[in-house]
Amino acid sequence: MSRYDGRENNQLRPIRITKNFTKYAEGSVLIEFGDTKVICNATVEENVPPFLRESGSGWVTAEYAMLPRATASRNKRDINKLKLNPRATEIQRLIGRALRAAVDLEALGERSITVDCDVIQADGGTRTASITGGFVALAMACQRLVEEGVLEKTPLRHYISAISVGIVDGEPMLDLCYVEDSAAEVDMNIVVNDAGGFVELQGTGEHGTFSQEQLHQLLALGEKGNRELQALQKKALDGLEL
Amino acid sequence: MSRYDGRENNQLRPIRITKNFTKYAEGSVLIEFGDTKVICNATVEENVPPFLRESGSGWVTAEYAMLPRATASRNKRDINKLKLNPRATEIQRLIGRALRAAVDLEALGERSITVDCDVIQADGGTRTASITGGFVALAMACQRLVEEGVLEKTPLRHYISAISVGIVDGEPMLDLCYVEDSAAEVDMNIVVNDAGGFVELQGTGEHGTFSQEQLHQLLALGEKGNRELQALQKKALDGLEL
Amino acid sequence: MSRYDGRENNQLRPIRITKNFTKYAEGSVLIEFGDTKVICNATVEENVPPFLRESGSGWVTAEYAMLPRATASRNKRDINKLKLNPRATEIQRLIGRALRAAVDLEALGERSITVDCDVIQADGGTRTASITGGFVALAMACQRLVEEGVLEKTPLRHYISAISVGIVDGEPMLDLCYVEDSAAEVDMNIVVNDAGGFVELQGTGEHGTFSQEQLHQLLALGEKGNRELQALQKKALDGLEL
Amino acid sequence: MSRYDGRENNQLRPIRITKNFTKYAEGSVLIEFGDTKVICNATVEENVPPFLRESGSGWVTAEYAMLPRATASRNKRDINKLKLNPRATEIQRLIGRALRAAVDLEALGERSITVDCDVIQADGGTRTASITGGFVALAMACQRLVEEGVLEKTPLRHYISAISVGIVDGEPMLDLCYVEDSAAEVDMNIVVNDAGGFVELQGTGEHGTFSQEQLHQLLALGEKGNRELQALQKKALDGLEL
Amino acid sequence: MSRYDGRENNQLRPIRITKNFTKYAEGSVLIEFGDTKVICNATVEENVPPFLRESGSGWVTAEYAMLPRATASRNKRDINKLKLNPRATEIQRLIGRALRAAVDLEALGERSITVDCDVIQADGGTRTASITGGFVALAMACQRLVEEGVLEKTPLRHYISAISVGIVDGEPMLDLCYVEDSAAEVDMNIVVNDAGGFVELQGTGEHGTFSQEQLHQLLALGEKGNRELQALQKKALDGLEL
Amino acid sequence: MSRYDGRENNQLRPIRITKNFTKYAEGSVLIEFGDTKVICNATVEENVPPFLRESGSGWVTAEYAMLPRATASRNKRDINKLKLNPRATEIQRLIGRALRAAVDLEALGERSITVDCDVIQADGGTRTASITGGFVALAMACQRLVEEGVLEKTPLRHYISAISVGIVDGEPMLDLCYVEDSAAEVDMNIVVNDAGGFVELQGTGEHGTFSQEQLHQLLALGEKGNRELQALQKKALDGLEL
Repeated sequence: MSRYDGRENNQLRPIRITKNFTKYAEGSVLIEFGDTKVICNATVEENVPPFLRESGSGWVTAEYAMLPRATASRNKRDINKLKLNPRATEIQRLIGRALRAAVDLEALGERSITVDCDVIQADGGTRTASITGGFVALAMACQRLVEEGVLEKTPLRHYISAISVGIVDGEPMLDLCYVEDSAAEVDMNIVVNDAGGFVELQGTGEHGTFSQEQLHQLLALGEKGNRELQALQKKALDGLEL
Repeated sequence: MSRYDGRENNQLRPIRITKNFTKYAEGSVLIEFGDTKVICNATVEENVPPFLRESGSGWVTAEYAMLPRATASRNKRDINKLKLNPRATEIQRLIGRALRAAVDLEALGERSITVDCDVIQADGGTRTASITGGFVALAMACQRLVEEGVLEKTPLRHYISAISVGIVDGEPMLDLCYVEDSAAEVDMNIVVNDAGGFVELQGTGEHGTFSQEQLHQLLALGEKGNRELQALQKKALDGLEL
Repeated sequence: MSRYDGRENNQLRPIRITKNFTKYAEGSVLIEFGDTKVICNATVEENVPPFLRESGSGWVTAEYAMLPRATASRNKRDINKLKLNPRATEIQRLIGRALRAAVDLEALGERSITVDCDVIQADGGTRTASITGGFVALAMACQRLVEEGVLEKTPLRHYISAISVGIVDGEPMLDLCYVEDSAAEVDMNIVVNDAGGFVELQGTGEHGTFSQEQLHQLLALGEKGNRELQALQKKALDGLEL
Repeated sequence: MSRYDGRENNQLRPIRITKNFTKYAEGSVLIEFGDTKVICNATVEENVPPFLRESGSGWVTAEYAMLPRATASRNKRDINKLKLNPRATEIQRLIGRALRAAVDLEALGERSITVDCDVIQADGGTRTASITGGFVALAMACQRLVEEGVLEKTPLRHYISAISVGIVDGEPMLDLCYVEDSAAEVDMNIVVNDAGGFVELQGTGEHGTFSQEQLHQLLALGEKGNRELQALQKKALDGLEL
Repeated sequence: MSRYDGRENNQLRPIRITKNFTKYAEGSVLIEFGDTKVICNATVEENVPPFLRESGSGWVTAEYAMLPRATASRNKRDINKLKLNPRATEIQRLIGRALRAAVDLEALGERSITVDCDVIQADGGTRTASITGGFVALAMACQRLVEEGVLEKTPLRHYISAISVGIVDGEPMLDLCYVEDSAAEVDMNIVVNDAGGFVELQGTGEHGTFSQEQLHQLLALGEKGNRELQALQKKALDGLEL
Repeated sequence: MSRYDGRENNQLRPIRITKNFTKYAEGSVLIEFGDTKVICNATVEENVPPFLRESGSGWVTAEYAMLPRATASRNKRDINKLKLNPRATEIQRLIGRALRAAVDLEALGERSITVDCDVIQADGGTRTASITGGFVALAMACQRLVEEGVLEKTPLRHYISAISVGIVDGEPMLDLCYVEDSAAEVDMNIVVNDAGGFVELQGTGEHGTFSQEQLHQLLALGEKGNRELQALQKKALDGLEL
């Protein structure tokens, strides 16, 4: 009746956000969604990609990778295949779009924030953990810019979080772990801001399709999950209001 | 009031499907969504990727690329950058997932069908054109397997089509062309099968977010578009019933 | 007695030149030599390679590629092998040298014209079709520079065309198709300008060698073929005189 | 008088070895030498490199990498430069040689153990931390092979540890942190086994040279450091005797 | 009146062929055309490329490269650009075709001979020196196969040599050195066998075009040069008759 | 009793240094340690790597490679594997560090000297031959800078040489050839300057470990070898005093 790990269908795994996990990055977070663990480090650099030079606008981007042994069997490093993992390519583009929705790029000015999401242990939901933890690292880096007097006020506009939902054995479930994800008929990642607006919605019928009705059930689950995640983000950020 | 090219908000661009556009591929289609033109060639090969060997199951995959001058300014070829374009990576993974939803991979047997989607002219909607045209090329290749006696009956299970929808200047619109796409607040690609089930749903708030209500409006537009596209696919395939 | 496709030994395949095949390129042509079909797109860019900066001179170059399914079996894309196809390297260097012979690079000024030759269907003679069609695309781009007032008069100096000749079963033949090319004892590509001068001559005894006498027979065939091709180029270019 | 962080010249930084830092690897350790933190994960695979096939012998190898923000400024990922970092190449070859000295490769049988050393924070001594921590991960993986009945007894022959020594402002010092390392006239890495034999000795006069007398002083410091490290390794391995 | 280095127009530079220049290769030659110096090493391997497996036929191929400082300014190594030099690609394909014309591939049996042509000093004519010297290395490797009893008789069918000719300041000249080659209006490489048949003919109007009459003058010069080169090859091979 | 090639344990192989082996490089040397032959070419360029721009300081670096047939069996070229050989990476970093110890980089000014070490025949000791010969090429390039009036006096500070020592069958030996190196229990490379200071010391227990006592024996052998090598360098450099 209950799930693989005893959770209710609408229950998140234990979420932990550890700030300052490493010491050099302008924003550093270890985020854990159960056994999924991702280091999110935000780096501020005083330059922008070529397409933004002289535009007055800044940039936020993300990179995503997994340690070779983040998973049950060892994956060769990208450099040994001379090819960025296609799944990682897809995921880091998603994280980048999601985090850009958190920031007023013009207020950031002509500088870049790169959020590196390195998965040290993967048990499902690495992209949603990366967005959720990456947001906290990004917020820390923005706060640092204010503290150091580089910016007068934070360029952050919105909290952003993300959660996965899916249909497993016909049951809509929140925050799938790896065994659930592997068995899911439908898998959806939902990125929202603190005004409840959808930033990104990616649903895939891996082994089936889904109907409008199922979509609604999934969106409702996702709303609950994201609301809880944003409460945890806010707590980690000492109640930061935007 | 009317759109850039005079269409109604819920109107597709002129869609043309030209079969046998090239002569060697097992399935070959030129698909046009207005000024967007994509060559979709399906190749059957008698082998499968390593992870499927001895599994009894076949594989369907896709590759997506643009000619250097498919767009207003010239893009360097991937090989000159030694890097598969990240956007193309994301798109070809989407096309592959979508087309796999059309086929019973076990009925296909241990062989692969690769659908190459090469964009010769891009005016928005290249990924949806690729899925819609790629399906027809895939179906032709499946029919060829039956005609040649390799398979007793087609491994195709469902028609699959895809259309983009978006919100431009606050207006929900169907099948965005490039200027609309560039200006869209929200952009969504909807892949469905002939039973109306969602195979993939990818919505992005490029310059904003979207609400549940807007989502519904977009899904309704998409339903209309995909119904029309599947009628055109069926006509191109001489009424093929699955 | 007659050839594979019924032609006389000194007869070209049906040649078709379709201008404006795509809409963005400054010059765009689909050229067909029988079943060989190549898209030739010329792009003008306001910069030159490093070795020409501050030289006052412009540059003309070419890139050549085949769609994966331009041939009877599917070829992997270069990017998946991280290596530019060596045959394509050789061919695009030939095309570039040939097209540079058409242009007064100083009159062009410090700008580049890149001619992309993308083979969508290959049935022998892709390099000669690329040169012949590429010239038309190049001429269109030059005319555009004049029409737009960038240049006062065209930097074109000469028509350039190319044709293959070969010895098959001891018979000298013009414009080999793939089955003839595969069986040829000798294969030669002849590039000439409209003054009858040789721009490039590349003869290979694939399965034998050739004598001075055979060389003369081949050159005579080539002269006839190139004369006909240049008449077709001129017609496509509305009688353009240089 | 005292060092940057208050240590005596012959004093190690605080060393911490955390076993089972991740859950999938056959051996997993987080090792800390002060602020230097390295995840060492050992993976057992039932195959060997081509040069050892049918040899009856196994293989032990290592890979070394740093997270982009393990250092004060962000380093681009190797995959984005399409080139394995040369410093990392040199280091991972050293780690591999060092760890092979710990194992009887014939007793291991035709299987491989790969030790991934991923630096999450770098403050000097990452290669010696990697060898010292990598040994513990390797030992855990060997024990697992015994516990699972794959091997009757451990193929480990020796404890292996490594420490850096150097001359800073004329003073020989043990276990250099980053600021010391940057300022060092001489830098040496010493790898020894539990019988006191040198496995590898790499000394470099970065900004000077060193004499035989200085070499002796450095070797004496290294002996002390490695003895302490091996005591900590043994404790972490529950007193494992070899 | 006379040439840059005092030669007659129809005169070769001093040609030197040093056998056994290195000790490991099955055939090893240092060939010098004046100041152009190329090491040609032939390697026999007991395997063939995939397309020849089970065919009973062998293979002959060539690789061509220059040391970084073979020329007046330093060239970066290919590996640092991750790209085989396009000019080298073109040249090594030419060398390979030329040397295959020397050998009965079926008589060679299912084994490969790779001829590495490494230019240590370049002063024009590196490709013709490579073919001429590469032939001697190839012949030595074939003789070795006979001496070792692997083959009963040599699979060599023909001597193969190559020479460059060109038109400089209106004058046809034999064996161009670098300053002549740079100034040449027309440049041609002529590969012939010992029966006088053309194996390959590559003429390029670098800064002009050439007429049939000029072609004849160039071919006559080439005939003289190749006759002299083949006499030197024969002497180096101790009078070997084929 | 005696060694593989009849030498005494403390005897170098015949060493030959041929200056001006090629004609374009600012310094060019062929160095031979017995059958090991390395071309060392030093190139002066009027620029420095990015990290030294505007620093007033110059740079010395090295690249190391082997011809494919420098060894008993053929090695594929790096470019065909798209990967710089890891062993070569390690070696060229060592050569670079060693040669930088010879030069006052500030006195060199903002220019670079690159020393290319290309092994044409390898019989053990290629890295020590590269350092020893590379030093002579470097010194020639420095002298050229003085002769041409670019620098007032040489930026060279010290002679630098390198030799290998090892323990084979329990016997310490100087300057190992390939068969000795393959069988060595311990292998050490010793780089010293003309003041007797160690620039680099790299000892590896390939098939064992070594004690302090063995280390002393090896260092004594190395001292003798390097003294002899520096005498030969000085002779080659016409008695150059620093």
